[in-house]
Amino acid sequence: MEFKVNSKVLEKLLSKIIPAVPSRTPMPILENFLFELKGGLLIVHATDLEISLRSSINVTASEDISIVIPARLVFDVVRSMDDVQINFSVEGNSKLVLTTENGIYNIGYSPSEDFPETPTVSKSKEFLINGKDLKKAIDQTSFAMSKEDMRPAMTGTLLEFASEGLRFVTTDGHRLVRLIYKNIKTSAEEQYIVPERAISVLSKLLGETDVKIYLGKSHISFIMGDVEFSSRLIAEKYPAYSSVIPLENENTLKINRHHLHSTIKRMMLFSSSSSKQVKFSIKKNNVVVSAEDIDLGSNAVEKIDCEYNGEQMDIGFNTQYVNDILTHVEDEQVLFKLHSPTKACIIEPEKKQEGEDLMLLLMPVRLNT
Amino acid sequence: MEFKVNSKVLEKLLSKIIPAVPSRTPMPILENFLFELKGGLLIVHATDLEISLRSSINVTASEDISIVIPARLVFDVVRSMDDVQINFSVEGNSKLVLTTENGIYNIGYSPSEDFPETPTVSKSKEFLINGKDLKKAIDQTSFAMSKEDMRPAMTGTLLEFASEGLRFVTTDGHRLVRLIYKNIKTSAEEQYIVPERAISVLSKLLGETDVKIYLGKSHISFIMGDVEFSSRLIAEKYPAYSSVIPLENENTLKINRHHLHSTIKRMMLFSSSSSKQVKFSIKKNNVVVSAEDIDLGSNAVEKIDCEYNGEQMDIGFNTQYVNDILTHVEDEQVLFKLHSPTKACIIEPEKKQEGEDLMLLLMPVRLNT
Repeated sequence: MEFKVNSKVLEKLLSKIIPAVPSRTPMPILENFLFELKGGLLIVHATDLEISLRSSINVTASEDISIVIPARLVFDVVRSMDDVQINFSVEGNSKLVLTTENGIYNIGYSPSEDFPETPTVSKSKEFLINGKDLKKAIDQTSFAMSKEDMRPAMTGTLLEFASEGLRFVTTDGHRLVRLIYKNIKTSAEEQYIVPERAISVLSKLLGETDVKIYLGKSHISFIMGDVEFSSRLIAEKYPAYSSVIPLENENTLKINRHHLHSTIKRMMLFSSSSSKQVKFSIKKNNVVVSAEDIDLGSNAVEKIDCEYNGEQMDIGFNTQYVNDILTHVEDEQVLFKLHSPTKACIIEPEKKQEGEDLMLLLMPVRLNT
Repeated sequence: MEFKVNSKVLEKLLSKIIPAVPSRTPMPILENFLFELKGGLLIVHATDLEISLRSSINVTASEDISIVIPARLVFDVVRSMDDVQINFSVEGNSKLVLTTENGIYNIGYSPSEDFPETPTVSKSKEFLINGKDLKKAIDQTSFAMSKEDMRPAMTGTLLEFASEGLRFVTTDGHRLVRLIYKNIKTSAEEQYIVPERAISVLSKLLGETDVKIYLGKSHISFIMGDVEFSSRLIAEKYPAYSSVIPLENENTLKINRHHLHSTIKRMMLFSSSSSKQVKFSIKKNNVVVSAEDIDLGSNAVEKIDCEYNGEQMDIGFNTQYVNDILTHVEDEQVLFKLHSPTKACIIEPEKKQEGEDLMLLLMPVRLNT
């Protein structure tokens, strides 16, 4: 059984699928591609059991067959080739023979029965979203997913379909990000939690192409052009996050994001590695930002102009978290909405982007006195 | 005691010195810069005891002083600043205070007595070499230095001054590189072995600027513009490498370097991780290059056109070593000079570059049969 394919065409196909191949796994079969030939179509699959990727190209094949071949080796060989025609010959003794004008490569293959089935996601619930919009929503929210396995729901990104829009929510208990994407509105409220690895792979796959999202009970699937990306959903209840969002933080601090961000980067050098604390001393027209490392005996103080409508307040934050947040807000000016040094602070861009509503919540830390 | 300096000017100075600061060391003092103020000159030193770097700028200072300050912290703070004036104030209680328009930074300093002395290299033996030439010589030879501490001399690069030119020699026992730089000729033969870390840091420092080399008994020093780089020499005898270079390898294989390199990259994917072997079956008009991984049951064979004037020969090499060599020869065509499958092979560019003579030696490996 034989088929022919151009090296560059195959490289492009495999490069889309290889992100689903796990780099370390107790199941060696997952380090393979499933090559499925069906009616002149070469369908390539890969999965790590949590996520899976599939795409296809047309090839000239003499018959249908399914084989499992070492993903990394085949990908590396194909992409190291110039623009050449490759003849794939599947032989009886578990040998796959690749032949080009100057070379012959023998690679062992396994039967396709051993390869895990890719779950099919029912096509009943379907949404269309612009690829760039989805990528932006993911990039603005994914950083706040929890890295701790204690509460599995929080290790993923919540997709919450609602009447006001599609909400992307992440939290690790110390901070929370909620982005409402207003172009997708639904009558029924539904929650889906997408795991971190899926979010990270998806972000790299997304481009200009529109994305079709299919929602199943246990899986979600994203169709981008000729690529189908699926992921298991986290089967847990997401924490009732709305209750922690303060409704009325009456004191607003408006500050230049670039100035503050530049200051925070320096404060990260001074805030001690144990407390990671930065202090904001907020007055009507300026904020004094300070950090210290008692162990090293070093400290830093900077003053930044601002507009603030509340009572003078000293409040402490985790320096790294403030840095993360300022990295993910795009506006020139940023608003800190405050109530007291012990209550959650809301951070927002001064101007909302069209069609979206971004809110970041940050818990303060108790100041060393 | 105070001095003022522009942040960007200081950043540029510190960025030249920071490569000598060790990232891990059992001696915490080495993680510092020595700041020496002398007659309006700020001289900055750093050392890891093996290598040291020194450079200076003019500053406006009220008096002379020497202090030792945390290198990474000061460098990171300075380079995170916009283009501003920094006032350095050295205060009595081991406190260094940096002040800018908006910020105040307190950093602890130590007395300069604790900082190791930089060895002074006698200025009696002196050579001038073009920075680009020196960089090229290092880049073409450094890859073959031994990584094993068993024979310390081989972990460095030999600089051998001779009547035919300055020889750069590296070897790890399996391969040897000798580059003769003909623009520096000396009557007396002398050998100096420069450690690997010095070679690696030096390569990054080199640019268009001419380099003055001073040679001492135990140290070598390189002056590049306003930067002085010194290194300890390896106080060992370099192996008598000339005796392993075959004088007459009568069979010459001429082959396109790019074709062979492309083939070798694919062979690296197939040659087994234990033997790392690639086989060259050389005939008059073509070479059949092959590799196999018995454990995985995979193998590869490619045929490349060549010109060969000897008897048909099968010879084996370490695939990685062939790859290294082809990466460091620049010519379109490369010559393999052979005698037999068990004798050292000489590899050379077809055309010598002007003013230099590059020779690479590679020991073959016994073929699995």
